[in-house]
Amino acid sequence: MANINANLLRVPKSYLFRDIGNRVSAFMETHPDADIIKLGIGDAVQPIGRCIASAGAMRCADMASAEGFAGYPNEWGMMPLREAISRRVYGRAIPADNIFVSTGAKEDSGGIQDLFSLDTKVLVPNPVYPVYVNTNLMYGRTDIGYLEGNAINGFLPEIPTDIEDSCIIYLCFPNNPTGQVADRGYLKAWVDFADRTGSVIIFDAAYSAFIQSSGIPRSIFDVDGAQRVAIEIGSFSKSHSFTGIRVGWTAIGKEVELSGLKHAYKVRDLWANRQAYRTNGVSHILQAMALEALSDEGMEASRIQVAGTIHNALLMGDTLRELGLNPVGGIDAPYVWCPTPDGMSGWDFFDLLLSQCSVVCTPGEGFGTAGANHFRLSAFAHTDKVAEALERIKRLRL
Amino acid sequence: MANINANLLRVPKSYLFRDIGNRVSAFMETHPDADIIKLGIGDAVQPIGRCIASAGAMRCADMASAEGFAGYPNEWGMMPLREAISRRVYGRAIPADNIFVSTGAKEDSGGIQDLFSLDTKVLVPNPVYPVYVNTNLMYGRTDIGYLEGNAINGFLPEIPTDIEDSCIIYLCFPNNPTGQVADRGYLKAWVDFADRTGSVIIFDAAYSAFIQSSGIPRSIFDVDGAQRVAIEIGSFSKSHSFTGIRVGWTAIGKEVELSGLKHAYKVRDLWANRQAYRTNGVSHILQAMALEALSDEGMEASRIQVAGTIHNALLMGDTLRELGLNPVGGIDAPYVWCPTPDGMSGWDFFDLLLSQCSVVCTPGEGFGTAGANHFRLSAFAHTDKVAEALERIKRLRL
Repeated sequence: MANINANLLRVPKSYLFRDIGNRVSAFMETHPDADIIKLGIGDAVQPIGRCIASAGAMRCADMASAEGFAGYPNEWGMMPLREAISRRVYGRAIPADNIFVSTGAKEDSGGIQDLFSLDTKVLVPNPVYPVYVNTNLMYGRTDIGYLEGNAINGFLPEIPTDIEDSCIIYLCFPNNPTGQVADRGYLKAWVDFADRTGSVIIFDAAYSAFIQSSGIPRSIFDVDGAQRVAIEIGSFSKSHSFTGIRVGWTAIGKEVELSGLKHAYKVRDLWANRQAYRTNGVSHILQAMALEALSDEGMEASRIQVAGTIHNALLMGDTLRELGLNPVGGIDAPYVWCPTPDGMSGWDFFDLLLSQCSVVCTPGEGFGTAGANHFRLSAFAHTDKVAEALERIKRLRL
Repeated sequence: MANINANLLRVPKSYLFRDIGNRVSAFMETHPDADIIKLGIGDAVQPIGRCIASAGAMRCADMASAEGFAGYPNEWGMMPLREAISRRVYGRAIPADNIFVSTGAKEDSGGIQDLFSLDTKVLVPNPVYPVYVNTNLMYGRTDIGYLEGNAINGFLPEIPTDIEDSCIIYLCFPNNPTGQVADRGYLKAWVDFADRTGSVIIFDAAYSAFIQSSGIPRSIFDVDGAQRVAIEIGSFSKSHSFTGIRVGWTAIGKEVELSGLKHAYKVRDLWANRQAYRTNGVSHILQAMALEALSDEGMEASRIQVAGTIHNALLMGDTLRELGLNPVGGIDAPYVWCPTPDGMSGWDFFDLLLSQCSVVCTPGEGFGTAGANHFRLSAFAHTDKVAEALERIKRLRL
């Protein structure tokens, strides 16, 4: 019998949000009349912009005509979309050639590790989006360092001073799960750390659209020196309600280098070749929708959606503070992160909210040990539902 | 500086069909008036069915409405589509639970190797679709065995008698690049080999729709015992002109086992978990189109497209035989595989056809050492173009 890849057994047998989904389903079976409000997974609920839907529908119709039909997409994305991302998102700081369109940020954050040798150390904050850690475990990496976030450091883990190895560093700001943002100084310190140690920062910018405060960088490439050390992963999922459409991208800093690469062959070439062997590109229809998402009208649709989500997040933060809790995040981010009352475990609090309020949250434990006794609320929900959920939570008299 | 994953340097720096594309572009620059006919890459040219386009357009419009919007897709595919594949493709021999919808067969043939331990031997025919080999090289596998196809065995390599190791065996029928098909007896011999050695067959069935002859299995699961040893990869790309839409699937035999898996946790569970960590599923829009592709109307559109392609392939085979060449394939497959005249190298013949006829073929060398001095013609082209290309080739007086 062929041997299993034992690395696949190093991760939980159920992905966090599947696990939560199963618990909610079980509750619904025993409580068929419960009016469940889901503030768990960060999944879009607002319809996509009409102009975006029209662009997709038109491309579908085109594909049924001799003139409009197209076969294999370019594995790296169509140039007009790569150009639009370069212009809209990066103000041309990252050239289109260094931008690779994909089926989403999750897919790329699992795939990007292919660039690095197996023995490269991985550094992640704790709490953390579980996909960074688990995809590395599945790949066989064994040296994973956790950087603790807590109330004292405001969930902005200290930059290590005792590490000399070159690492793959996963950073996500606005953060999932804590909703915290990083200012330029904090990000610059990470860039300097990466410079000093020869590390590469994988910067997950999936939530950048939620930054409202001035002075907070929306991209790692807004930070001096990042072109040398950073790869950024972006997404239309949260900015444009594309969670069910599936388009993201990876942007590679112009001067990122890896030891073992010959001079003329750059990291972007390496990723380009990896993508050419592993994918046949993203559907023309989805790329047409993404391109329209970056039009003036598409960006306006995004602004309205983002404003609604931020409104929800602010409401959540205010209510939790009223209840005497100490949430963080939820200002420039769609997530509110909060210690549980009386030091309950996150899963106990999850069960309490589900059973008493029919409200679904995410237990902090799902994001690592430093998430213990915390919970996350997602502001991706309809505002009336959020208000109702918060009323129910108030009545709990925590 | 972080170390590169040196395995990524074990593959050619340009994927075969990019390389060909670059040569063709260079030719077009120096010959701007050339009327180039592309019979190289196997890329659909016929528009998708109108009912399929309509299903996609409707789903796009839905996504812009409160009622029709949906967030994250199920990572494994929506149940109605998995059910439809189970019913239409497998006559329910593979249950929907064992079918995993993906963005395409290429993506799955690169990803499926994640299931197996790194030291598992890989067996591939030669010539071979380069993605099987190169994705394994990029993963770090070192033990790759090639099984030679040639005119004597009709490009159906002998089943090895001297291998006792459990292997990952890649088979593709109808074959890319040779267009050959395998009868039940040949496939049964492979199933028996896998049974004896504890191997797993990865069966690429992307071209199954082209099988017209009776008695030729369209799926490995039509063969006795395959449920124990096979994983099949399927695609809408070639049957429904979906190369630019991007939907495929992986179907896991009900009784496939791997050493190291605990009893209740099956290979399908392992793949399900891998997919849940690595993807967020396939766009709702593309899944709606795939579901419609399997409707009666969608299947009728496929039948018309496939008939056109087969017509082209038969024309190609006839012409090459008229010219005194000895092609194989092209009867139950969209590819015609042929020795070059006078033992020319495939690349020389490629250059000859391009420069003298403005016709693009694929040099056999792109598919491995056993492809030397051969070329492949793809029948995915408009019939008038195929006829014109064949006239030009005739005038070459090979």
